[in-house]
Amino acid sequence: MSLLTVGTVAFDSIETPYGKAEQVIGGACTYASYAASYLVKPINLVSIIGADFPPEELQAMEDRGVDLRGLEIKRNGKTFFWAGKYHTNMNQRDTLVTDLNVLDDFNPILPEDYKKSEFVLLGNLTPEIQEQVLDQLDGNQKLIALDTMNFWMDIALDKLIEVISRIDVLTINDEEARQLSGEYSLVKAAEKIHAMGPKYLVIKKGEHGALLFSEGEIFFAPALPLAEVFDPTGAGDTFAGGFMGYLAKSNDVTFSNMKKAIIYGSAMASFCVEKFSIEKLKNLTEEEIEARLDKFRALTHY
Amino acid sequence: MSLLTVGTVAFDSIETPYGKAEQVIGGACTYASYAASYLVKPINLVSIIGADFPPEELQAMEDRGVDLRGLEIKRNGKTFFWAGKYHTNMNQRDTLVTDLNVLDDFNPILPEDYKKSEFVLLGNLTPEIQEQVLDQLDGNQKLIALDTMNFWMDIALDKLIEVISRIDVLTINDEEARQLSGEYSLVKAAEKIHAMGPKYLVIKKGEHGALLFSEGEIFFAPALPLAEVFDPTGAGDTFAGGFMGYLAKSNDVTFSNMKKAIIYGSAMASFCVEKFSIEKLKNLTEEEIEARLDKFRALTHY
Repeated sequence: MSLLTVGTVAFDSIETPYGKAEQVIGGACTYASYAASYLVKPINLVSIIGADFPPEELQAMEDRGVDLRGLEIKRNGKTFFWAGKYHTNMNQRDTLVTDLNVLDDFNPILPEDYKKSEFVLLGNLTPEIQEQVLDQLDGNQKLIALDTMNFWMDIALDKLIEVISRIDVLTINDEEARQLSGEYSLVKAAEKIHAMGPKYLVIKKGEHGALLFSEGEIFFAPALPLAEVFDPTGAGDTFAGGFMGYLAKSNDVTFSNMKKAIIYGSAMASFCVEKFSIEKLKNLTEEEIEARLDKFRALTHY
Repeated sequence: MSLLTVGTVAFDSIETPYGKAEQVIGGACTYASYAASYLVKPINLVSIIGADFPPEELQAMEDRGVDLRGLEIKRNGKTFFWAGKYHTNMNQRDTLVTDLNVLDDFNPILPEDYKKSEFVLLGNLTPEIQEQVLDQLDGNQKLIALDTMNFWMDIALDKLIEVISRIDVLTINDEEARQLSGEYSLVKAAEKIHAMGPKYLVIKKGEHGALLFSEGEIFFAPALPLAEVFDPTGAGDTFAGGFMGYLAKSNDVTFSNMKKAIIYGSAMASFCVEKFSIEKLKNLTEEEIEARLDKFRALTHY
């Protein structure tokens, strides 16, 4: 099966209690693609960057089986840039800089063969752009997942609800699920969000793990407790990439397989936070991933 | 095996977004004893109340196998009273009233046969009183668990550390684990707390579940997502009672059995929060408890 990932490819500057990283590779689509690359090929990437993006980083993605024909390179533009600072509580961060740059002109055009990708992961973007991608798909997708955030609920709720009605899996955090549904209880929030369209709801809770809801069924995956969470940037996107990659590889969207996919995503996210940027995600071995999955089993099974 | 529970038996007045309950039965020892009563007999209770405590409530506890010979009744005193109000986020509450009343004179004297209780649960009390109980035990205990809170870390840290060095299982919440250890990472906090004495550390995270640490091993149990958390008062004590009751019943303190005990405690806590006070804990059937345990398995196993 093939996986289409649409979202940002970016530069980040990050400060955490453990150190600083300036102008490193970031972006939801980058993290998600690396995570999924351990499971499925091809990964059809759709994004936009400027001429400042290092060619060797593109090569590294291609070497991992990421198809970059859908990546637009604006020769006169600069790549999307985000700078942020995390506090001791890594669940909280301040955004210092957001330079949209080329992202302001993002007008995703899918190469013809991308349109029949069976699995689709729409990263956090304006609901208009997410809709534009949905409109280009051939309609035979097995599963479409969409990530969004409170910002779009604040300024583009109607369009967001329209887009959400067309997808299968919504991934948001707990506060966003409460905002979108108007319900404090996540169980009640899930019911209301199911009624908006998505058969599956993934609620990401950062260091407190993730919940999967579908038609009265619930599954919970913890985050792996780590001695040091070095940099949480991209953890949610890595999780989503691992989750969708696992489903695409197994071509099985039953609830019981989704549970395994959630664990796989959590395992990949646990690697992501151990180093800055995509450093840890670039060269994982099968043994490392298997050992990490064993840790999750020990952590949750009794 | 027998279980000794020492702690408060109290009146509570509680306000939650779902309603109000005035002058209802509360207290850590009450909740813990009810939870454990589904597993083990006798439960040797040590606490203090005033003449205002309803005799029928004492009878109800005795009917569930709770031995009240260690319960001091001050004929001229009033029972400990706590009033609190919860916000929409049930993890936060305001204490409105704390009337220590008879608790101010609590001087626990263990009946002779209580001193050889194999399992001991020391509820949140002044470290001095907790020490007084430890001093009376015969020294042949299988497992001693102790609950405490940030308040004692603020005002009686030295004495608390002395008491902690003498017990096997410490149960605190995540912020308290951070305060006690000076480490933000819970993995590092656990290492430091193990070095203080307790072989086991249980970190309670409310709606985000609980973590069990022991010598490099970690287990995580989620809280059951519920449509309505009616009243969280006593959930932590119910959890501790279910946990220790399970261990006492099985007389097995291996890590793998502790995992099951954590799940049992979580299941009992999930009942506790469904109604005010001890209402839901008074008359559970074996079938209800089994069905709840099945829900935990579905929630966590893959």
